[in-house]
Amino acid sequence: MTCNNTPSQPIYLGIDGGGSKCKARVSTPGTQGCGIAGPANPFQNLEQAKSSIIEATQLALESAGLSANQMGETIAGVGLAGVNVPRFMKLMQAWDHPFGEMHLTTDIHIACLAAHGGENGAVIVAGTGSVGYMSMDSTTRSYGGHGFPIGDIASGAWLGLEAIRDALLTLDSIGPSTALLPMLEQQLHVQGLGITDKMAGATSREYATLAPLVFEAAEQGDAVAEQIVRRGAAYLSAMAEKMLAEGATSFCMLGGLADKYQPWLSAAVINHAKPPQQEPDAGALLYARNCHLQTMG
Amino acid sequence: MTCNNTPSQPIYLGIDGGGSKCKARVSTPGTQGCGIAGPANPFQNLEQAKSSIIEATQLALESAGLSANQMGETIAGVGLAGVNVPRFMKLMQAWDHPFGEMHLTTDIHIACLAAHGGENGAVIVAGTGSVGYMSMDSTTRSYGGHGFPIGDIASGAWLGLEAIRDALLTLDSIGPSTALLPMLEQQLHVQGLGITDKMAGATSREYATLAPLVFEAAEQGDAVAEQIVRRGAAYLSAMAEKMLAEGATSFCMLGGLADKYQPWLSAAVINHAKPPQQEPDAGALLYARNCHLQTMG
Repeated sequence: MTCNNTPSQPIYLGIDGGGSKCKARVSTPGTQGCGIAGPANPFQNLEQAKSSIIEATQLALESAGLSANQMGETIAGVGLAGVNVPRFMKLMQAWDHPFGEMHLTTDIHIACLAAHGGENGAVIVAGTGSVGYMSMDSTTRSYGGHGFPIGDIASGAWLGLEAIRDALLTLDSIGPSTALLPMLEQQLHVQGLGITDKMAGATSREYATLAPLVFEAAEQGDAVAEQIVRRGAAYLSAMAEKMLAEGATSFCMLGGLADKYQPWLSAAVINHAKPPQQEPDAGALLYARNCHLQTMG
Repeated sequence: MTCNNTPSQPIYLGIDGGGSKCKARVSTPGTQGCGIAGPANPFQNLEQAKSSIIEATQLALESAGLSANQMGETIAGVGLAGVNVPRFMKLMQAWDHPFGEMHLTTDIHIACLAAHGGENGAVIVAGTGSVGYMSMDSTTRSYGGHGFPIGDIASGAWLGLEAIRDALLTLDSIGPSTALLPMLEQQLHVQGLGITDKMAGATSREYATLAPLVFEAAEQGDAVAEQIVRRGAAYLSAMAEKMLAEGATSFCMLGGLADKYQPWLSAAVINHAKPPQQEPDAGALLYARNCHLQTMG
């Protein structure tokens, strides 16, 4: 038997870090805890990501009745947005982190682990952005993503942009009339071509705030909005079919627009959709445990 | 008879100012001249626009055998990009300019005047951006434009974005294969998903540099590229039909993509297209003369 420094009762730490907040979850055989801190997307702000991770961990340790001094005993599974970009993965891997062990992966990977309770499976995220992800034994693969506006088709940002484009076609009397125009004017507090000034240089998040209007108008039967939602749903269905063809037996829809898209997906796809089992931070805990046990041999 | 300060032989000055350069043309009953200086888009850089206008004017006066000191005697027609935005129109109107008179308008207005030799008519610009414009007696109206990515449908920037999107769908094996993928990889000097890093945060100009590839692939029969060009052409045809329905009897296609789009426009539209008569800086001269003669009563 080999001797190592791991405490006899390991403190597992799961981190789910994204562009708006960082969630930490702590689990030992006897106690649980969680903590939430600010943004942790190293692509957006590397130093802020590190300090948010530490702050959320401290809060989680305290909430579990442990001491923040025990951070060095933790086995951390860290799932982060932004580390799909190799440069930011390397920067985070080079971090002189305060944990006993740190196992780093993408936010989508821990979300997929959580959704399927640590088993193989696929997920499709439809929120501000969009992406598909599949975990099959030792291999993983992602579909789409790529960032807005070149990728993230069907995402909230994409829906918002399409809505603005179609509303402007209506204003120019080139496109058909649509309920989206008055709805956008109301939400943006502008009239007519005031939309263009308001949206000049808008971020993907700003576009995504308009996405609920597109579903609302489509549900009310607006033909233009329905066309947009149908195109988005067709893309997500194609992505799901691709993953099912490549061996996934089911998939989970995640993200703020998951429920809204469900009724618009193809029947062949819907039959393979199931609700996620756990939240991403629980997936980060699973990842910490899996990696640690592999390390132990 | 009223007495005024206008010299007996007026020096007309036409300015065509855009995001890449500023052209000036000087015309008197006895002499002509022209000059070119740097960018003059007040939306991009207000002070640079003013100094480019002055520099181009000095060069034009010298080239006409006149003195730069005679700037105060000129009657200037100034057509600028960016002043379609009311705030920048006001800022330019507030300029303590060095001319005898300054008559300010948009770049598209002088382009339309030039294209139709000062007569009523319509133009469609398809370059980095896109816009339609119609001048009917005392009224003018524009269609489209609105900036990339919310507007400027069918523009070079739009073509480039659509090409990148479709190439990424091919890379994900979600979309059909397309010759655009290897062509984009070659032009961008990257492989596969390297495209996403290369295009992150790209400007409309950077997207527009990819537009010729889309026409090239479409002309070679690539179905994906052909779909993109057909959608762009359908938008431009709809814009032309709208202007013809509203009273324009003909229209001119302007901008770097005008010739490339011609074969893809609808037959009903092509029958009303004719080549532009003059360059936009000549339209600025016409505008200077028209406004001056109106001022004189």
